[in-house]
Parts: sequence; structure tokens; C-alpha cells
Amino acid sequence: MKQFFTFLLLGLISISLVNCAKEQDKTNASTTEEIPFAIVIHGGAGIIKKEFISPEKEKEITNKLQESLDAGYAILNIGGTSLDAVQAAINVMENSPLFNAGKGAVFNSNGKNEMDASIMEGKTLNAGAVAGVQNIKNPINLARLVMDSINHVMLSGKGAELFAKKHHIKFEEDVYFYTERRWNSLMKVKEKKGEKLPIKNANNLSTNYVDDHKYGTVGAVAIDKNGNIAAATSTGGMTNKKFNRIGDSPIIGAGTYANNNTCGVSSTGTGEYFIRTLAAHETSNIVQYKNLSLKNALHEVIFNQIAPLGGDGGMIGLDKKGVVAWDFNTEGMYRGYKRSIGENVVKLYGE
Amino acid sequence: MKQFFTFLLLGLISISLVNCAKEQDKTNASTTEEIPFAIVIHGGAGIIKKEFISPEKEKEITNKLQESLDAGYAILNIGGTSLDAVQAAINVMENSPLFNAGKGAVFNSNGKNEMDASIMEGKTLNAGAVAGVQNIKNPINLARLVMDSINHVMLSGKGAELFAKKHHIKFEEDVYFYTERRWNSLMKVKEKKGEKLPIKNANNLSTNYVDDHKYGTVGAVAIDKNGNIAAATSTGGMTNKKFNRIGDSPIIGAGTYANNNTCGVSSTGTGEYFIRTLAAHETSNIVQYKNLSLKNALHEVIFNQIAPLGGDGGMIGLDKKGVVAWDFNTEGMYRGYKRSIGENVVKLYGE
Repeated sequence: MKQFFTFLLLGLISISLVNCAKEQDKTNASTTEEIPFAIVIHGGAGIIKKEFISPEKEKEITNKLQESLDAGYAILNIGGTSLDAVQAAINVMENSPLFNAGKGAVFNSNGKNEMDASIMEGKTLNAGAVAGVQNIKNPINLARLVMDSINHVMLSGKGAELFAKKHHIKFEEDVYFYTERRWNSLMKVKEKKGEKLPIKNANNLSTNYVDDHKYGTVGAVAIDKNGNIAAATSTGGMTNKKFNRIGDSPIIGAGTYANNNTCGVSSTGTGEYFIRTLAAHETSNIVQYKNLSLKNALHEVIFNQIAPLGGDGGMIGLDKKGVVAWDFNTEGMYRGYKRSIGENVVKLYGE
Repeated sequence: MKQFFTFLLLGLISISLVNCAKEQDKTNASTTEEIPFAIVIHGGAGIIKKEFISPEKEKEITNKLQESLDAGYAILNIGGTSLDAVQAAINVMENSPLFNAGKGAVFNSNGKNEMDASIMEGKTLNAGAVAGVQNIKNPINLARLVMDSINHVMLSGKGAELFAKKHHIKFEEDVYFYTERRWNSLMKVKEKKGEKLPIKNANNLSTNYVDDHKYGTVGAVAIDKNGNIAAATSTGGMTNKKFNRIGDSPIIGAGTYANNNTCGVSSTGTGEYFIRTLAAHETSNIVQYKNLSLKNALHEVIFNQIAPLGGDGGMIGLDKKGVVAWDFNTEGMYRGYKRSIGENVVKLYGE
């Protein structure tokens, strides 16, 4: 009988030790299982095919995308916010002539650069946007300022520029935004349409230039160590655009959306279709209400909603667990991501 | 044996007669069971309480809402489209000084009227919008023109006005948009903030005037005999608005949304919250993905999404079966609906 109790006691002790070890495991797991922070970016979708891009240009674009990723990642890595990370990543692309945003923005019908940008914070659903601004070096910084400093979400045109001046946002002269390539794009579109050419004389038209006037928007989505998601988009819009057209990039829910409960998304493509389908918000709602993965939700929106209307483009995003996804129905999309679990990817073409 | 066959024959004949009658019934049913067409409108939500409105003013507003409903309904009744119906209904309110749209639009910080409008067709998901336009008599007509005539969804500011001029849209001088009441609102807001007053001298300030500077947007949603839904919204925005602020009214998915598969919605209230929640599109998605009634979806968005962020306002809508719904978290909302099954309702206050 005594022996029986000894066994019983040993049994109970060992069970409780096992349970204790299990609890310990859980604690360890939750300590080591930090939220994997991550950033994903795009530099526009379109007719991006290997045969159209020289090896030198390919390297240049790849390096710039990597620089953008690194800039955002560095902020996340030291515990910075996803808002700061997406802004830093976009600044790199806005400061490069390679993308249709900031310095490399395309020309509107009057030969001017007219830019849109938006940013959104998934924790608070705060958002800021600017539409049709000229001579602003980094439109995404102005969108961020709108979000942070006034109770409006969206400012536009001369009013947004006045607001920028009051807050000492950096302006640049027209010449800063001039790129031969974008000017030639404008000339080609105008010549094709038989429209009057703007003041600057158009020589040296590169006839082999790929007509990417609809594409090239830049975007970034990040999740930080606190699990907060942010998304942002910046663009020069469409070459030869008229009538102060506003595309999807500055429209919360179309070009940009972030929600800590679901995901963050940034869009690029023929903006009107992304507005009509509320592409970024629709993606988030499909994740939330249909319980689809972000990857499947993006595919659903691009291929079953945007494409049937005649639209094309792509979207990037990441979900609340830091899982990255993208999709596009164009030939290619400049894109990349970097995650704290050691992944680093940059791609340009369809694959 | 012969008798047996006779019975069999009679039996077969009677079975086929009964079936035939059943088919006939079905045909009759589908002929008489026409889609009930309907229109629902709002003239803004806000601090609308019986004690603030004189019986004469109450009658004036009620009559104008009825006139708006009748204008839209008349078009539906003769087999016209829901797009034409919402446009006609909104024109009535834009041409009245009673609402914050068109003639009655509030003044911006510079003492100018700066208007926004959008329209969407539920069958095609086509949409048109204008933001920050001045001197346009009926901004909703310009939004419709954008939808119908170019491959852009959204135009803004001077560009949208240039587009309007090219298409012979009706302009009015500043004096047409001047209303003592709106001017006094601007003066009061500016005085409260200690801001410099615009040029016109401000006498005769009505101290009892209800500060409704955030509200008064107009909207309409209709379903026609073919089951096509359309939604539209028009506004003067916020009194004393600065920096070419764009609110929710011209944003597809925030102020306006229509989808034949779900519903049509028009919003009014503190626009920024309707942008951040994509209120109109969110309502449609809740109907689609959570299978809630439109009434419950509107309630969910206003009370569980907009209100927790600090926003207020209201929404109207109707679903694909022509069932009308509205909800608001303000004291009241100018609103009404008229349905082909014989219902006609106009209300102003919370009840």
C-alpha cells in the first residue's frame, strides 16, 4: 500500500513537472516568437519585360529598390514605426528619377509635374493625402504632415501647397523634376494624339522607349515590432493628364489602405479601375469577411474584379502576421520585400 | 379495358392541364411582380431639432425634400434610369438655398464656394466625381459628365472647371451662390477662431443661428424598373475650409457607392471619418460578405465604426430589392423616400 502511494506521488510529481515544462515552453515561445517585422515595396507595374531593359538599367533599378527596402527596414530594425519606415522607403524612390513619383514624376498636359500621395496607419485608421501638388520634393512627406497635423484627410492643389509652405515642407524648382525620358513620353503621347506640344522643344525622341505613361507609381507597406501596419503610395499620375485628374494613389481605400486587424495594401496601375473597385479596401474586407489569405484576396481583386472591367496593374501588401503578398496582371512589377526572419527579395519581371 | 384507357387518357389530360395552369400562374406572377422602383434622398444630417426650426422653415424644407423626391420618382415612373433620377433629385436640392450644395453651398476660408460631387452606377461600377469646383451651378451634372464622357473618374479644381467650360456646363457668378445665412456662418467661425475676415463686411449676424457648418450635404439613391441602382452626393463641404480640403462626398466608396449586387449608399457628416472607414463601400461589403440587411449594415458602420473614431453623420441607401434604409447618430437628418408600392415619407428629426 505504501509502495502504491509512493508511485502515485511520483506519478503526480512527474505530471506536474511535464506540465510545468510545457508552460515554460509556451513562455519561451512567446518570448522568442516576436512579431516578424517586414517591409514590402513596389515601384510600379506595367510592360516590364527583360527584353526591354538593358542589364545596366536592370541593375540600377534593382539597386534602388534594395536601397528603398534597406531604408525602411533600418527603421523597423531599431524599433521605429511602420509609418516612418514606409515614408523612408518611398522617399528613396521619390528622390530617384527611375520611378513615376517625386523627381521622376511624369508630365501633365501642360508640361508640369502634378503629384499625388497618401499614407495610412493601421492602428488608428488615421490617414493623410494630397492630390495634384506641384514642386513638392516628397509628396509623401506632405501627406504624412496632413495626417499628423490637421483634422483633414485630403488636401489638394494650390491649397495643399500653401499648407506645405506654412509647414516648411521642401519645394523644388521645375528643373529638379525634369527628366528627358518623361519629357519624351509626353511628346510621344501628344504627337500620337495630334495635340499641341508644350513650350519646351522636343528633340531627341527615343523611338524605342517603352510607353509606360500609365504606370510607375511607388508604394510601401510595413509592419513594425509592435505589430502596427502602415501603407503609403506616391505618384506623378498619368503622362499628359488633363483637367487636374485625380487617380487612385491619393484615395484612401483605392490606392492605399492599412488596418491592423487585416492587412496593409498599396496599388499601382490604371487608377480609375482601382477607384471603382476600392481595390485596397476591398482586399482588406475579403481578408476580414471572407477569411481568405492576403495572397488570395489580392488575386481575387485583381483578376476577378479589376481585370473584368478592363483594368490592369498590381498590388503589394502584408498581413497582421507579417506575411507578404503581391499580385499583378501586367507583364511585370518592380517589387521587393525584406523580413526580419531573414528574407530579402527583389524582382522586376513576371514569374 | 377500354374504360381503363379512357380513365388513363382523362387522367393524363387533367395532369397536363393542371401543369399548364401552374405555368400560366408563374408567367402571371413574373409579369405582375415587377421590381419595385424607389428613390431615397437626404439633405444633410446634424443638429436638427424641432425646437431650432420654425414651423415655416420646417414646411419649406419638407416641401423641398418632397419636390426632390417627386423629380426623381417621375423619371423612374416613366421607365427612366436611376442615374437620371438621382441627378434630377439632387438638382432640386442644389438649386435651393436650403442645403449645403450648389446655390446654398457654404463658404470656404477665402469667402468662396468650393463644391464637391460624385455619382456612381451600380450596373457597370462606372463613376464620376469632381472636387473643389467653383461657380458650377450643378456640380452633380459635372460629375455625371465626367462619368459619361472621359476615361477618368475624378477631376478637380481649375482643371475640372476647364473641362466643364469645354462641355458647356452651366456656370453662375459668385452672387448666385451668396446666401446671408452661409456668409454669417463663415463670419461666426472666423470670429470664434480669431481669424481675419474676408472682404465682404459682416453685419447682421444672427446669434441664434445653429452652427451646422459641418453638415448639409445632399444625396440620393435610386433603383429603376430594370433593377439598376445609382447613387449620388453633392456638397459645399465645410464652412471656412482651407487648403482645398477634399471631404468624403466626391470620394467613391466614402460618400457615394452603388453596386447592383448589393446596394447604393450616400453619406453625410464629418467627411474625414467616412473616408477613413470607406463608409459607403464598407456598408456594401457588409451586405455582401456578412449577409446583413442594409439597415443593419448601415447601423454597424455608423455606430460601430464611425462613432468610435469620433465621427458623426448619417447614411441613406436602398438594396437590390428596392428596400430603403437609413441611419444616423446626429440629432436629425433631412430625409425621405418614395417607392412604387405606394410609400412616401419625409422626415427631419430623430425618431
